[in-house]
Order: sequence, then C-alpha cells, then structure tokens
Amino acid sequence: MTTNRQIILKDYVKGFPKESDMILKTSAIDLKVPADGGAAVLLKNLYLSCDPYMRLRMGGIHDSFYYTSSFTPGQPIVGLGVGRIVDSSHPEFEKGELVWGMTKWEDYTLIQSVGSLFKITNTAVPLSYYTGILGMPGVTAYFGFFEFCAPKEGESVFISAASGAVGQLVGQFAKSKGCYVVGSAGSEEKVDLLKNKFDFDDAFNYKEETDFNVALKRCFPKGIDIYFENTGGKMLDAVLLNMKMKGRIAVCGMISQYNREEPEGVRNLFQMVAKRIRMEGFIVFDHYHKYNEFSDKVQSLLKQGKISYVEDITEGLENAPSALIKLFHGANVGKQVVAVARE
Amino acid sequence: MTTNRQIILKDYVKGFPKESDMILKTSAIDLKVPADGGAAVLLKNLYLSCDPYMRLRMGGIHDSFYYTSSFTPGQPIVGLGVGRIVDSSHPEFEKGELVWGMTKWEDYTLIQSVGSLFKITNTAVPLSYYTGILGMPGVTAYFGFFEFCAPKEGESVFISAASGAVGQLVGQFAKSKGCYVVGSAGSEEKVDLLKNKFDFDDAFNYKEETDFNVALKRCFPKGIDIYFENTGGKMLDAVLLNMKMKGRIAVCGMISQYNREEPEGVRNLFQMVAKRIRMEGFIVFDHYHKYNEFSDKVQSLLKQGKISYVEDITEGLENAPSALIKLFHGANVGKQVVAVARE
Repeated sequence: MTTNRQIILKDYVKGFPKESDMILKTSAIDLKVPADGGAAVLLKNLYLSCDPYMRLRMGGIHDSFYYTSSFTPGQPIVGLGVGRIVDSSHPEFEKGELVWGMTKWEDYTLIQSVGSLFKITNTAVPLSYYTGILGMPGVTAYFGFFEFCAPKEGESVFISAASGAVGQLVGQFAKSKGCYVVGSAGSEEKVDLLKNKFDFDDAFNYKEETDFNVALKRCFPKGIDIYFENTGGKMLDAVLLNMKMKGRIAVCGMISQYNREEPEGVRNLFQMVAKRIRMEGFIVFDHYHKYNEFSDKVQSLLKQGKISYVEDITEGLENAPSALIKLFHGANVGKQVVAVARE
Repeated sequence: MTTNRQIILKDYVKGFPKESDMILKTSAIDLKVPADGGAAVLLKNLYLSCDPYMRLRMGGIHDSFYYTSSFTPGQPIVGLGVGRIVDSSHPEFEKGELVWGMTKWEDYTLIQSVGSLFKITNTAVPLSYYTGILGMPGVTAYFGFFEFCAPKEGESVFISAASGAVGQLVGQFAKSKGCYVVGSAGSEEKVDLLKNKFDFDDAFNYKEETDFNVALKRCFPKGIDIYFENTGGKMLDAVLLNMKMKGRIAVCGMISQYNREEPEGVRNLFQMVAKRIRMEGFIVFDHYHKYNEFSDKVQSLLKQGKISYVEDITEGLENAPSALIKLFHGANVGKQVVAVARE
C-alpha cells in the first residue's frame, strides 16, 4: 500500500473560497486497478489545473443552473490534470502512458470512466502545458475565438482576464489574425505581460480604472468589434456601451460573478438592439471532438516559437487549495497549475 | 392655404410620457411642393403608427446610444404612417399615389427625402395595415423570427408583449412553422386574444404573475428553445433560467425599460454559457431591402385567411398623444394606430 494524499472539500462554499474550506487527508491506496472494477486506469497525478469554473462546482447549486455538477463534500476536489498511468485494465491504455483529462486532487486516482482522457504523445513541451495551452483552456480559446467571434483582419478585439490561461491565448490568436487587440488584467505586472510578452496592442489594469467605460473609450476610440468575455458584471456593461455595429461577444465565463451571493445586474443590454450585437455562450465540452485540428495548429505555433505561454506553477499537492484561491483574487500570473509530481 | 394641424413635442421626456408633453398646434400650408425645394412629395397623412421605439426618440439621449436620433422639441413628432401624395416634384412619385414610410404627426407633410417611402399597390386590404402587418412591424416580425430565431418544427417559442403589432405576427409565424407557442401580455382580454384569435398554444397575463420564472416553468416544463424579446428586464431574467440548451433569443425591443431612469439589471446572463445560448439584437432597417419577399408571403397569407391581425385604431390627429401614451401602459389591444383621415 502507498500513501495517497487527498484535497477534500469540507462543505459547500459561500462567497470567496478559503483555504479552510479544503483539508488535506492522508489515506492509503493499492497501486493496482481492482480486479473486479471493470476496465479502468490508475493514474499518478503529475499536474493539476486550477480553473475558474471550479468555483461553480463548490457552491452546491443545483446542476441545471450551471453546466457542471457540484463537488461532493467529504470527497476530493475533481479537476483537470496530467497524469501517468501506473496500472491499467483498459484495453486502450497502457502502464507508463501519459494522459490529460478529468482526475481528482490526490496523488493517485482510479479512473473508471476514461472517456475524458486524452493521450499525450508530444512530450517535447512541458507536460504542464496539457492543463493549459494544449488542454482545456487552449481548446476553449481556439474555438471560442475562431468560431464564436468570427474574426476578420483589422477588427478590434477586447479580452477581459486577458493574462489568464484562456485570455493570453485568445489575444495571440487575434494578433495572428491581424486584429487590434486590447486586454484588461488586475495588476501592472500582468499589463506588462500583455503588452510585452503577448504582444497585445494595448492593455489596462482594471483595478486602477474608476470607470471602465472611460478606459474602453481610451483604448477603442472607434469601438470594439469583438469582446471575449471572461469576467461578466460591470465590465460587460461598459463593453456594451463601446461595441461597434454588428459586434460579437463570445461568453466564455464570468469569473467576477462566481463568488457573489447574487450576480450583478447588467443594464446596457438594449445596446444589443441599437448595435445589432450577437452574444453567444459556449463551453469547451462541445468542441473536444475537434481536438486534433486544434492540437496540430497550436503544437506547430509552439514549435515555431510563434506563441508565448505563461504559467504560474505552485509546488506540492498540499498547496493546491491556496493555488485555487489565488485564482479568485487574481493573484496568479498566467495559467495557475499545481505540480504534484514531476514524473 | 390649408389648415395643417401638428402634434408638437414640447420638450424631452423623463419617465412615462404624458399628454401634456405634446401639444396640438395649428398652422397653414400651401398644398404644393415648393418650386425651389428640389424633388419632393407633399403627403396627406391618413394613418399614423404608434410604436414603442418612439419613446427612445423622446428622451434627448445622444444618438449613439440608440439606433435612432432624438426628436426635436418644438417640432412635430416623426413616425411611420400611410399617406396619399397630393403633390409631387419627384419623378418617381405621382399625385394620388399611396405610400407608407417616415412622415410627421400632422395633416400634411412635405417629404424631401423620399428614401423611406414604399409605394402601396394592393388596396384590397385596409390601408392602416401598412403601419403594421404590411409595414415596419410586419417586416420586423418576419425577418426577426425566420432569420434570427432559426426556428425548427416542434420547437418551443416564447413571445413577450405578444398581442402587440410584432408579437401577434411572430406567434402566428411560429405556429405556421409547427412550433409550440406561448405569449405573455398585460390583460385577460389580450390573453384571450392570443389563445383564441391568434391560436397560441398558451398565454399568461404577466400582471397577474408574482414570479415570471414560475409562470414560464408552468408553460414550458421542458424549457424554451426560442425567445422573441420585446420587453427586457425581469422577463428576460426569468426566460434565461428557462431556456433550453442551444436556445436562441432574438432581441427586438425592450419596452419595459424605455420609461425608466436606469434600466433594470439582468442577473442571469451566466445561463448563456451554461446553456450555450445565442442572443442577438436586430433592427428592421437592415431588412427593408427584402420587403418584396416579405410582402408576397404575407399578402398571400392574408388573402387565404391564414393570418389574423388586430388593430387598435384611435380616431383623430388630436388624439394621437393619448394613443401613443396608451402603448407604454399596455392600454392598447393590438397594433396602435391613429386615423387622421380616411382618404
């Protein structure tokens, strides 16, 4: 038997999650797939992904309200990750193979439903990239931008939470399409990253702006064609005032709203009529079947050095709760990852 | 010289418009197009149209906020209407012809920009129909529903302000497409009209419902595929909770918001992500070039008796202000028209 540390959700969360909402529990695990468990794989978790949507699963809200079910108090946090298969009774998976997909916040995870696992074949990039640029956030950014924003060369694109896992990629995809790209983020360090690392045309620190409408008018004197929405609330309201005719808003997420008891009201929706705006929500689930198209393209961009990617890696499973919490305070710089083990 | 009565906007309006915001002024007009005025037509106004968007033009809000410029205090109200040409210096228009398009709230109007005028060729229907089912509201309903809602047979459709000029037509178009159709309206009389005259599957009086979410769940236990949005505010919030996966919201207008100092906040926009909802605003201006396609179809439906249409006709230009105000209190039953003259 081997020690298996787990990060357990104590109870449903209200407001901002706190470290004390999760506890580290140590149990033991046999590193074998159970003989009577059907086709399954046993995963050694290497990297765990911290993603904004996870807050939705911590609240105990009825499934139908969100697109994802709640976590179970008393059980480990569930999330995306990268792992190595240490045992398998599944005909399509072999011991030693690397995968990414849905796993749990623990050292080892028995996965009886392998449907969400993608095999990792290219290991010339850091494995942690499969929690980000080559994983769920990458697929989100790629199809969210190219399908839902329907971008044209020369159009103006605004991205909120722009230095995050998804935002930084959307910005670079937009630049590659010949768009004028501006992002908002929550610190000078992030603004610097947007301008100098990711080559955005402009960026602003929303925490230093008293009026988002003024900030947007300064960056987009002629208005916004495309808004890639990651935050919701006040920023969306200000964007609506600054959209151009026939603008498009792709709604990826609304992180500014997830810790609120009640979401902020958005008041400027009539602008959708005045400007003939199209706003559409999307979820990455619906686009995983196109993973290879995405992967070929982005692996190639990475190889050619045409795309940058910034991660914020927290070391140690025991620090996973604080890593997750950083996300909701914008304390991470780039994609937030937890390194559980290196191999 | 002939007497020309005019309905003048006294000043910009705040809150609900009142009769005293408009005054009847009598002046005199020469029933001739001025010799030095370029190509123009002089119209005798027969029917004037009362439409919700007109409230947006009464507020003195900067043009860019809405899709239409403000009225000018001290000048007549501008709106759609049906008229007969009493004189013309324009090569394409002749004395005696009937037209519909942008005119003013007065007995006679000199139109120097004829771009918005459509000639009326079929006079087998009431001429007032060209302010409604065969005019702007008809084009709005037709393209708003068939293009923006992308309806499929068997889908469930919800329409707010459903007995109004646009709503009653959208509902009947949806029924003709084989959809399940429910409407909301503001009185028992209107609900009865929806169910028994326009053949909606169900309808409710929103003024009698304490919780729109409950009302919608009752009418749509399996959810809504298509929402044709005419009201905004609380109803939109409740609809968002009841949309089905991949639902569509066509935003035509938001009459419940036009008289408010500040629009209501809409809180449930995250449902757009959870349900992958598409919401799109549209304006009839963009679709007038397809008028003939629309007109052929709807004239034929009318001729075959396959479509019903209800108007609320107020007699006399002097009563136009009270007719317009009825609209914002939902006191009209069906399309609100003002009859200025019959021929």
